[in-house]
Amino acid sequence: ALKKHILVIPGDGIGTEVTTWGKAVLEKIGQQFGHEFSFDEALMGHAGIEVTGNPLPDETLAKAKASDAILFGAIGHIKYDNDPSAKVRPEQGLLKIRKELGLYANLRPIMLFDELLDASSLKPEILKGTDILFFRELTGDVYFGEKKRSEDRNTASDLMVYSRYEVERIAIKAYEAARVRGKRLCSVDKANVLEASRLWREVVQEIAKQYPDVETEHMFIDNAAMQLVKNPKKFDVVLTANLFGDILTDEASQIAGSMGMLASASIGDGTGFFEPIHGSAHDIAGQDKANPLASILSVALMLEISFGLKEEAKLITSAIDKALKEGYRTGDIADANTDRSKVLGTKAMGQKVLEYL
Amino acid sequence: ALKKHILVIPGDGIGTEVTTWGKAVLEKIGQQFGHEFSFDEALMGHAGIEVTGNPLPDETLAKAKASDAILFGAIGHIKYDNDPSAKVRPEQGLLKIRKELGLYANLRPIMLFDELLDASSLKPEILKGTDILFFRELTGDVYFGEKKRSEDRNTASDLMVYSRYEVERIAIKAYEAARVRGKRLCSVDKANVLEASRLWREVVQEIAKQYPDVETEHMFIDNAAMQLVKNPKKFDVVLTANLFGDILTDEASQIAGSMGMLASASIGDGTGFFEPIHGSAHDIAGQDKANPLASILSVALMLEISFGLKEEAKLITSAIDKALKEGYRTGDIADANTDRSKVLGTKAMGQKVLEYL
Ligand SMILES: CC(C)[C@H](C(=O)O)[C@@H](O)C(=O)O
Ligand SMILES: CC(C)[C@H](C(=O)O)[C@@H](O)C(=O)O
Repeated sequence: ALKKHILVIPGDGIGTEVTTWGKAVLEKIGQQFGHEFSFDEALMGHAGIEVTGNPLPDETLAKAKASDAILFGAIGHIKYDNDPSAKVRPEQGLLKIRKELGLYANLRPIMLFDELLDASSLKPEILKGTDILFFRELTGDVYFGEKKRSEDRNTASDLMVYSRYEVERIAIKAYEAARVRGKRLCSVDKANVLEASRLWREVVQEIAKQYPDVETEHMFIDNAAMQLVKNPKKFDVVLTANLFGDILTDEASQIAGSMGMLASASIGDGTGFFEPIHGSAHDIAGQDKANPLASILSVALMLEISFGLKEEAKLITSAIDKALKEGYRTGDIADANTDRSKVLGTKAMGQKVLEYL
Repeated sequence: ALKKHILVIPGDGIGTEVTTWGKAVLEKIGQQFGHEFSFDEALMGHAGIEVTGNPLPDETLAKAKASDAILFGAIGHIKYDNDPSAKVRPEQGLLKIRKELGLYANLRPIMLFDELLDASSLKPEILKGTDILFFRELTGDVYFGEKKRSEDRNTASDLMVYSRYEVERIAIKAYEAARVRGKRLCSVDKANVLEASRLWREVVQEIAKQYPDVETEHMFIDNAAMQLVKNPKKFDVVLTANLFGDILTDEASQIAGSMGMLASASIGDGTGFFEPIHGSAHDIAGQDKANPLASILSVALMLEISFGLKEEAKLITSAIDKALKEGYRTGDIADANTDRSKVLGTKAMGQKVLEYL
């Protein structure tokens, strides 16, 4: 039995609603397996700005550093989106915590739930068998390079920059994962145009030599965005930079047809950070409509990756599978064939999973 | 009747094979309508490097500037792709000609051919009715910002940079097009993270005020990559920066299921530049397998955009439509239902179109 301290950061929008159920599942798992999970909560994003003026309050960062794992909800608010000149923005909180905790590797498994095959815009025969694990670099690239605005405000720039060690450490993680999966790794860059990509490719080519059992492919980002739609099955592990990873993983989640079902793990030097792929979805916030399953799957990732609890993680995915097999759906994954009496709100779906655990 | 001088730049790989047919169609149209089209040819890319050491030979640039329009094939060679340290690269030729000719707006119409609806990985009901016109900025962004490599070669960077006038001029072109199309414009950026995107969004918001009849939406690139798969029909005109446009247009072409059927126009201050969306495809080069229709459609775009010859352009698309309706296909667009005797090589398909003109 383990003793672990988990920080819950609900963030913005539907973040609060969904993390409630991630936490409830952790509590139940703790009871069932005799683990001692303790919890704390903290603010981030728009929620942090409202109370402290800071999207990542000092207190949140201190609590984060002191925790064994973090369960995060979502970030963002339309208020800032249409105000390009806002100096303080919710997203800064997320970027800062990634950097401060050294969360350089963002893992996004794209998995298909058989019951939801029809939810994708792709033809089932194209989709079937897709199982991709993305490794997105998370603390470098144009996200963190120097940003400038000229004095007359008419020119703006961001520096896209990578250093060798940043590419090495995530490449090693991706190759280690490929080795115990399908033994194929596709590294995505734009080396025909970008110097940062040429460094990226050089380093990946070097690391590849240490993994002769893994088949390496290099692909340009434009081609990768295309191949993902054309033949998603051909990918196993995909390794890419921060910006390209942001774009490709969202595209891939839609291909899987289950944006509301996908979780991600951000890991690095210390505490791991677990969150759904979906955003704050203010249009449905507070209406008991959000799908809590991605938050619950984030908890499964936490148990497996941060705490090494595979059996517990498996129990969670089985409970979700069962709920889907029984025909239960939240609005986002319901379709014309769904029995209307089985379309559940956030709470009812959360409770269903607890029941099946 | 018009008198026009056209420079043909076949470039690399299948470029030579497909431009042959683009040119043949231009000649035939010239005869039919009494236009005097004269031609010249020049080298670029790997073909330019082989002969002159330069991916954009001086002679090519001079000829390009002196022409009324340019028909381009494709660029690139695998030889350079796996050598990130190569100093001279085919793509530099394409980037340089874009810059030198001031080709700041790349227009990529994503259109569906009813006969080819089944060729997409997307379900026909998701796809049907899709009609998108992309405006990709083509002479700025991280493509042209300063590139650096540290002395120890361990750090590499590219500057992502935009200036107000660069955003303004392409935004105006995109709004003008939206006005005579579906009156909806979606501007794609990453303003929640990038300063260059915040400038982009500010400028588009300003220009939008001059087009109150056009509905403007701003979307983050990760969301756009997702929405394109989820619901491509919702887009009309999409306006975006160079790098994001490179990724989104390739993704969209695959969604349309007809990579081999899509053409693009690069326009700006002077001579227009017309090319298929597909690449040099060295794996099938010289085998009479390439689809010449995208090159022929590039010619239709040239006639319409550079020469204002709408009727001539329409005749070309009708001839292609007819070939498809008669069941003729090149290998890339053939499927299980295609009559094998109607699967044509490059030459036979080119001739078919000439015949139907
Ligand atoms: C909210 C935003 C800053 C963030 C990102 O771009 O990294 C999000 O899109 C993500 O993928 O986690
Ligand atoms: C060949 C390459 C430099 C080019 C680009 O990235 O612009 C190509 O992908 C394109 O889209 O025209």
